[in-house]
Amino acid sequence: MISAILLGTGNVANHLIDTFLQSKDVDLVQVYGRNSANLKLIRDKVCTTSEINQLKNADVYIIAISDDAIQEFSSQITIKNKLIVHTSGSVSMDALSFHKNRGVFYPLQTFTKNKPVNFKEIPICLETNRSENYKLLEQLAKSISNHVYNIDSNQRKYIHLAAVFTNNFVNYMYKIGNDICTENNIPFKILYPLILETAKKIKNNNPANIQTGPAVRNDTKTIEKQINLLNNQQQQIYKQLTQAIKNTYGKKL
Amino acid sequence: MISAILLGTGNVANHLIDTFLQSKDVDLVQVYGRNSANLKLIRDKVCTTSEINQLKNADVYIIAISDDAIQEFSSQITIKNKLIVHTSGSVSMDALSFHKNRGVFYPLQTFTKNKPVNFKEIPICLETNRSENYKLLEQLAKSISNHVYNIDSNQRKYIHLAAVFTNNFVNYMYKIGNDICTENNIPFKILYPLILETAKKIKNNNPANIQTGPAVRNDTKTIEKQINLLNNQQQQIYKQLTQAIKNTYGKKL
Repeated sequence: MISAILLGTGNVANHLIDTFLQSKDVDLVQVYGRNSANLKLIRDKVCTTSEINQLKNADVYIIAISDDAIQEFSSQITIKNKLIVHTSGSVSMDALSFHKNRGVFYPLQTFTKNKPVNFKEIPICLETNRSENYKLLEQLAKSISNHVYNIDSNQRKYIHLAAVFTNNFVNYMYKIGNDICTENNIPFKILYPLILETAKKIKNNNPANIQTGPAVRNDTKTIEKQINLLNNQQQQIYKQLTQAIKNTYGKKL
Repeated sequence: MISAILLGTGNVANHLIDTFLQSKDVDLVQVYGRNSANLKLIRDKVCTTSEINQLKNADVYIIAISDDAIQEFSSQITIKNKLIVHTSGSVSMDALSFHKNRGVFYPLQTFTKNKPVNFKEIPICLETNRSENYKLLEQLAKSISNHVYNIDSNQRKYIHLAAVFTNNFVNYMYKIGNDICTENNIPFKILYPLILETAKKIKNNNPANIQTGPAVRNDTKTIEKQINLLNNQQQQIYKQLTQAIKNTYGKKL
């Protein structure tokens, strides 16, 4: 049994609270939060506090708050010698350098409020500044997920960057698809099976090997016709991505 | 019972052949193909021919060949007065204008060779030049899919365009994510749950309302740091999509 205290009551924090409470291997000792409305919602499930000086004793303290606030907030934690970690993909472990024993516990997933997730399937990226703490953090991570990775701060930077392309920018492509459909009285849901299959396909295929479409075929006629159907900003994106695909695959044609 | 003849032995054709053969409501009378190796693979399952003048009698003739070849190929079909359709998202129905009764039977999905699909879940976009033929084509489509849409050639053009963004360009985003991971010794599969959840999320959410990431937060510090981690071409794409997201959401910030 490993004991943990969670600091934060936002989206990621709430998903972790529910997951820890369901785990037989984790004792969620306490949740700290400044937002009293959020705290109220969870105080039936777990012991809570809004006083940073009243943190109880636990093996691991997990800071799950917004990226910008992590460094300053961590300096307010007066607990000594215990392992303090944050859950951010883009903040360096050394934002916690006020603490001798520090680390990162980064669940690589996009969370939706009130939509339960199966944490067993979510990759968790771990890092600690001292190797003796790694086992402890790994024990905590493995108690909730089957996919635990040792990822240093430099690699985590690149994972976060890859996620910007595969999550943020992909969602923006969905948005453009939705705009195009709406403007032409087409239900966007007609694209849903295609979108899902496109995502599923890369589980067993390197995306570089399954690129399709007018750009990779160098189908100039279709490309020109399609550009004329788009608004200005969509045109710029279409042209640039088409050119990038041509650059990537051009030599193979 | 509706009878059909399929012309073509490529990827889409093969998926249709298997689906029609499994359907109790469709009689797949014959398959035409020029590629004798491909024909050989299916002649145990269905009657085949490589002679365009030896097509049998059927209610519907479905041309499932590459976009560029449809128009010229269709003029070689000497069958008169029967409904002839193609399966392309980007070719106009009038590419079949050699035929008095013409239409489109466009399954909106990305197909992988030898990976069976559940056609019931695949949207099929239908169009006919004569309303009296629509019912016939609809009967065929509904015998294999639960999602049949009446989509005219103009709308289909836009669906195909939206698919370029949500399938082709999305796959290219996956490719960049894979490149970033590979270069930094990170297993790309670590991103797979995020990618799948991103695709699933839009089933119940308008993508415009769930945009996340440094661009929509206008997090200039992270944006600058991330740009410096990318190669030239990746930088250009990152900058343009970041700017587009800022333009879209700027007023709301």
